[in-house]
Amino acid sequence: MEDKAQIQEAIKSQGEVVRKLKSEKASKEQIDEEVAKLLALKAQLGDDGKTQFVLKTPKGTRDYNPKQMAIREKVFNTIIRCFKRHGAETIDTPVFELKETLTGKYGEDSKLIYDLKDQGGELLSLRYDLTVPFARYLAMNKITNIKRYHIAKVYRRDNPAMTRGRYREFYQCDFDIAGQYDAMIPDAECLKIVHEILNELDLGDFRIKVNDRRILDGMFAVCGVPDDKFRTICSTVDKLDKMSWEDVKKEMVNEKGLSEEAADQIGEYVSMQGGMDLAERLLQDHKMSQSKQACAGLSDIKLLFKYLQLFHVTDKVVFDLSLARGLDYYTGVIYEAVLTQASAVSAANEAQNCANAEESVSVGSVAGGGRYDGLVGMFDPKGRRVPCVGVSIGIERIFSIMEQKAEASPEKVRTTEVQIMVASAQKNLLEERLQLISELWNAGIKAEVMYKKNPKLLSQLQYCEEAGIPLVAILGEQELKDGVVKLRVVATREEVDISRADLISEIKRRTEA
Amino acid sequence: MEDKAQIQEAIKSQGEVVRKLKSEKASKEQIDEEVAKLLALKAQLGDDGKTQFVLKTPKGTRDYNPKQMAIREKVFNTIIRCFKRHGAETIDTPVFELKETLTGKYGEDSKLIYDLKDQGGELLSLRYDLTVPFARYLAMNKITNIKRYHIAKVYRRDNPAMTRGRYREFYQCDFDIAGQYDAMIPDAECLKIVHEILNELDLGDFRIKVNDRRILDGMFAVCGVPDDKFRTICSTVDKLDKMSWEDVKKEMVNEKGLSEEAADQIGEYVSMQGGMDLAERLLQDHKMSQSKQACAGLSDIKLLFKYLQLFHVTDKVVFDLSLARGLDYYTGVIYEAVLTQASAVSAANEAQNCANAEESVSVGSVAGGGRYDGLVGMFDPKGRRVPCVGVSIGIERIFSIMEQKAEASPEKVRTTEVQIMVASAQKNLLEERLQLISELWNAGIKAEVMYKKNPKLLSQLQYCEEAGIPLVAILGEQELKDGVVKLRVVATREEVDISRADLISEIKRRTEA
Repeated sequence: MEDKAQIQEAIKSQGEVVRKLKSEKASKEQIDEEVAKLLALKAQLGDDGKTQFVLKTPKGTRDYNPKQMAIREKVFNTIIRCFKRHGAETIDTPVFELKETLTGKYGEDSKLIYDLKDQGGELLSLRYDLTVPFARYLAMNKITNIKRYHIAKVYRRDNPAMTRGRYREFYQCDFDIAGQYDAMIPDAECLKIVHEILNELDLGDFRIKVNDRRILDGMFAVCGVPDDKFRTICSTVDKLDKMSWEDVKKEMVNEKGLSEEAADQIGEYVSMQGGMDLAERLLQDHKMSQSKQACAGLSDIKLLFKYLQLFHVTDKVVFDLSLARGLDYYTGVIYEAVLTQASAVSAANEAQNCANAEESVSVGSVAGGGRYDGLVGMFDPKGRRVPCVGVSIGIERIFSIMEQKAEASPEKVRTTEVQIMVASAQKNLLEERLQLISELWNAGIKAEVMYKKNPKLLSQLQYCEEAGIPLVAILGEQELKDGVVKLRVVATREEVDISRADLISEIKRRTEA
Repeated sequence: MEDKAQIQEAIKSQGEVVRKLKSEKASKEQIDEEVAKLLALKAQLGDDGKTQFVLKTPKGTRDYNPKQMAIREKVFNTIIRCFKRHGAETIDTPVFELKETLTGKYGEDSKLIYDLKDQGGELLSLRYDLTVPFARYLAMNKITNIKRYHIAKVYRRDNPAMTRGRYREFYQCDFDIAGQYDAMIPDAECLKIVHEILNELDLGDFRIKVNDRRILDGMFAVCGVPDDKFRTICSTVDKLDKMSWEDVKKEMVNEKGLSEEAADQIGEYVSMQGGMDLAERLLQDHKMSQSKQACAGLSDIKLLFKYLQLFHVTDKVVFDLSLARGLDYYTGVIYEAVLTQASAVSAANEAQNCANAEESVSVGSVAGGGRYDGLVGMFDPKGRRVPCVGVSIGIERIFSIMEQKAEASPEKVRTTEVQIMVASAQKNLLEERLQLISELWNAGIKAEVMYKKNPKLLSQLQYCEEAGIPLVAILGEQELKDGVVKLRVVATREEVDISRADLISEIKRRTEA
């Protein structure tokens, strides 16, 4: 515990910092930050310091209320059902990792990692994604084969001013297949999974773009991009879904120092889209065919399409040479699913308060992934490789769309599954209500009772209408005498007496439909 | 990005710290800590620095493997089903809160809170429990009535050397009822929920101890404990489940400066256990009845038992004056469930590697909670009170017991729900297998296929035995010609030809039983 005088001293000097910033007309953000520190100091003084709390969640985070949770549960259930249908196990890892586990995996984005304070002991960071912890788990436990899903929150100190609507705490929803297998079979299953999930969630039409890192690298090589510029040119290509080709070219030539000629050659390739036929054509392309890497990638794309045909999903899949994807660790096939229906996309934009056009273009992306054969080896002391391919469902975007759909629908989102309310028509029947509801609970029926000794019948019925509870079991003097319960259907207001002995089966019959 | 030379400098001096500690034969823990810092520094150098990773999860945390996850899912399902049966909604809150939100809520335990590094912006801490974020949520959203559950991980920098087997990251599983209601009705429901969950989980016999903070305070008052010693004496009483009365008395008298006479009077009371009758007797007790507070508490205990009788759970509930519970924020009824069967308790001990007797005595505690009517008011700017009562299920302990039971059972824990493997008896049937499995997936059947072009039939069958997959659909030249599939039951090895048209319904029929 720090000394109170010390804290008061700190409050005084922090107060001056805030006053200075205000007088200098500093940015609101900067002032808010310093005010937050001031309030945290004041809070340390405890009860006697008339603490004024800032009632909020941390910047970039949010609570989920019951309605949002009901939607979230529905989406998760659909996704988990699909993962399980494909035989996936699940694992869990801690929310933080040793800092060094994350170091060197995310390139420039490493600055977005949340570090924990050094309170003595290990240096820790909050996980940035689920893929690196997965690779760490495989190497640590010497696992060479697994098909697993992992749904959990990850953390990124993204600048909300730059990427509006993006959260700093958000869910990832990953499915990965690790193991040495024959080419493209697990890769094809990942795309089948994306297809199944997006179909089932009923988000409107979608496309799955496919490419291969080896094709990109081969393309860069034959177009004359110097080896040491592959990565940076790749990340410029990745902006094609948000920027015009002209702007991308400008960045390549002016900022990254690529020759105009090389850029134009790249421009020709990245405008190409197609299916298996395009892969075949490029295998014959006099320039592309000079790259062994590109040929390996193109052959695999052909094989992938063959398997996707057997899965009947080629209608949604397109081989797109402009797809690059940001992450460094991909080594083979990469893919990304985008919603193509304007309505769904605009709903997502609205939900995320994305006003500016630059972002709204790419908001349709709802799943992505690829093959990363080198990542596990980075953790293995002997560098043993475990080939992996996986997909991540963009669950936050899907939540937003589902929330919008729920708002627009006349149907009310129920936040509980209660089947029946145990109510009383007269006073002094609390004990009878408690006895009856206990019987119902013990029979597995979802039931509620009002926590009042003498609630009014009307308020009990109103509660049912608000909460969407379909049935009411009404107890009164007469019903108790007759050994029955008045069963009322909330929607139709019809009432019927049911004997106590038949009540449970009657409730089950009426609510199982 | 820090300068490379700066990092190398830091590595050099950190290396000296480690060498010094080693030469001084410092504790392994201390050395490990400094080595971790050294490695983190080295990792900052990136690829060129031949990084040597420490492959581990942070101290006090663990991964869950698929088997553990299967057990965890089963336990969660039982608990969530119960919460939903009682009409609870669910919410979620961020894993971290503003530091000031947690300040002043946990007394001395505040030192166990994980802080995030100040990377610019707000000061943040990982949540320490789910109750304080719940209270913050209620005050922030001006919610005065809610019945919610929340299952999520919380974080405590507990010293593993002192409390062995306890994790720094662990689940809490909370159910709370907030709102101004008639006395003891929601409180009784909380106990009914504990009763239902412990019954359903089948952990062996249990007891639910009940007491009331007002009874404790009243008892302290009439026994002559000075007002300013209530809290500290209360936390000594809390140790009665781990220490003998003699030792507790010694602490009261020698360490806390209580008079021997007062301690003896407390000793008489805290040895009392009973039911409604004990509450009635104490209401007549010439000393206890002098405290208004104690009388209010005792009357509520009587009322509570009346409702518990209607719920038929009094067989497991005992009014126990020695129950104190650690947390400061309780204001009324408190309770704690303990397992009483030696087998379950010892299983829990083993699972948690609790070798020393001191801890094993209390390891039976699997649920606890109470009434906290003042906490929400601490967050409300106008101090508006929202009475709350809740219960937290000790899920980590329950996991341990369930894991032990699973280990001891001859039945294998399945980590997937796969119903059928699509296999081939000959070579070159990959396409046929992929086509068939796609049909099965589309029909909602959980199915797997080996990711090999030409797997051996034997290895496909062995995989089924290992993974507990009950059925195999075998394709061969003959079957394809006949338009059938050979359906094999893994357990009995019996095989039968099924027409392709009937396959899906036949699989459903056989796996739905």
